[in-house]
Amino acid sequence: MTRRRRIYEGKAKILYEGPEPGTLVQYFKDDATAFNAQKKGTITGKGVLNNRISEYLMTKLGEIGIPNHFVRRLNMREQLVREVEIIPIEVVVRNIAAGSLTKRFGIPEGTPLPRSIVEYYFKNDELGDPMVSEEHITAFGWAAPQDLDDMLSLALRINDYLNGLFLGIGLKLVDFKVEFGRLYENEEMRIILADEISPDNCRLWDAKTNEKLDKDRFRQDLGNVAEAYQEVARRLGILPEAGPGDHTAPKLVQ
Amino acid sequence: MTRRRRIYEGKAKILYEGPEPGTLVQYFKDDATAFNAQKKGTITGKGVLNNRISEYLMTKLGEIGIPNHFVRRLNMREQLVREVEIIPIEVVVRNIAAGSLTKRFGIPEGTPLPRSIVEYYFKNDELGDPMVSEEHITAFGWAAPQDLDDMLSLALRINDYLNGLFLGIGLKLVDFKVEFGRLYENEEMRIILADEISPDNCRLWDAKTNEKLDKDRFRQDLGNVAEAYQEVARRLGILPEAGPGDHTAPKLVQ
Ligand SMILES: Nc1ncnc2c1ncn2[C@@H]1O[C@H](COP(=O)(O)OP(=O)(O)OP(=O)(O)O)[C@@H](O)[C@H]1O
Ligand SMILES: Nc1ncnc2c1ncn2[C@@H]1O[C@H](COP(=O)(O)OP(=O)(O)OP(=O)(O)O)[C@@H](O)[C@H]1O
Ligand SMILES: [Mg+2]
Ligand SMILES: [Mg+2]
Repeated sequence: MTRRRRIYEGKAKILYEGPEPGTLVQYFKDDATAFNAQKKGTITGKGVLNNRISEYLMTKLGEIGIPNHFVRRLNMREQLVREVEIIPIEVVVRNIAAGSLTKRFGIPEGTPLPRSIVEYYFKNDELGDPMVSEEHITAFGWAAPQDLDDMLSLALRINDYLNGLFLGIGLKLVDFKVEFGRLYENEEMRIILADEISPDNCRLWDAKTNEKLDKDRFRQDLGNVAEAYQEVARRLGILPEAGPGDHTAPKLVQ
Repeated sequence: MTRRRRIYEGKAKILYEGPEPGTLVQYFKDDATAFNAQKKGTITGKGVLNNRISEYLMTKLGEIGIPNHFVRRLNMREQLVREVEIIPIEVVVRNIAAGSLTKRFGIPEGTPLPRSIVEYYFKNDELGDPMVSEEHITAFGWAAPQDLDDMLSLALRINDYLNGLFLGIGLKLVDFKVEFGRLYENEEMRIILADEISPDNCRLWDAKTNEKLDKDRFRQDLGNVAEAYQEVARRLGILPEAGPGDHTAPKLVQ
């Protein structure tokens, strides 16, 4: 096998040059970080699960007309995506108070928000991904006002769709983070959804028990992290059922 | 003299019941605080100077059609204002990088911003006045979208006017903070400028030397704090000239 050029290694994924120009291979690692990488660990099987979950969600979002970078899954840990120019803004949509919002406003975790709240964070590890407003984004030129409008309306549609999809499988979508990029094609530029959508970037609580089935299990040392991600995949119907006599390791996790 | 009812004592001012309903007396103290009141001190004469400077700036802003709470100065440390329902949002307008913005974005102090940037902070000492976006403000109902629009356009007009006014007296307006309130009158509600405009809430640098003539002298222990406020008043033309043989304490400071 020819060794592909590695373009970027992040905290959770590695990007390789893709088979054709304008494509990349996203390799999903088992590495996990939290609190701006102050906490590090490994969640065995996470990469395989996130590769599969993100494939599923990106495909479904594509079907309702949310343009995104996903092309196809290549193997257990890799997917082919379209290369974009990532906009250095993390878009967070919140439905229920959790995480930094509870601290910023002194609101107890679990409080339903009066309406969905969209936040922006500047993707910059050195600065600790500071929260920013549209003013900062457009004044510093990280995104044009029109880009921001597109990102906002896409983020709200993603929220609507995922809220419904997760509720259907007994999960509350507390909040999530997405990234967008610019795709240049036929002399035109479009904003499309990129990166991943997985329990690494979504807070998902069991609708009845409020049990956490996301990366907060890692952040808060709640244990059974991989099992939680697997439960999400299972409810999405994308874990192969255990075959006869197969009561141990799930098939998907290599 | 009958003792007026004290309505509120803040860090820099005391509010008393005014002589008529719908009015308040703002008493300007010499107390100074910084870094969310972790640093405290006294700047002798500051209250007198801020009372006079705020009177002057509010009057001038009123003349260009910026509605504000100022009615008249009562004495050296007090002014009569219209009582409003304060909107719990501090509106900050920045022209040059300084203060928290330099830390948030790793931009050196003194860097001219690509354009004026407006920021909002939730007025809440316990939470440390966190920065917020329009999303938070409208979702939590601290201000209606229409209120915010009014505050934003007033803040931008104030910035334009004060930029010109200060440049005319050899000062750069680096940034400033204003507060707005709701005034109910004739069955109508209007947003008006309230609180104060003074070197406590503005960063003012000498246009040639970049010498700081504002509260940063107190924050950063640069000394000559009252003298800097006095220099601002002097350049605004509102300090009585020293009379013959009067080379010591300026008249205004009691
Ligand atoms: N389609 C794409 N084209 C180009 N870059 C992409 C695409 N999708 C995602 N990326 C970028 O690839 C990287 C994925 O790596 P990973 O998620 O591990 O990064 P990270 O450690 O989280 O760092 P970052 O804070 O930059 O996200 C991210 O920087 C992401 O913005
Ligand atoms: N016209 C007005 N009507 C009612 N309240 C006012 C008016 N103008 C200013 N205020 C309020 O009066 C108080 C002034 O006191 P001061 O500036 O010392 O407060 P502070 O210690 O800075 O506290 P805060 O953080 O609330 O401003 C502020 O709370 C301000 O919002
Ligand atoms: Mg990432
Ligand atoms: Mg104040």
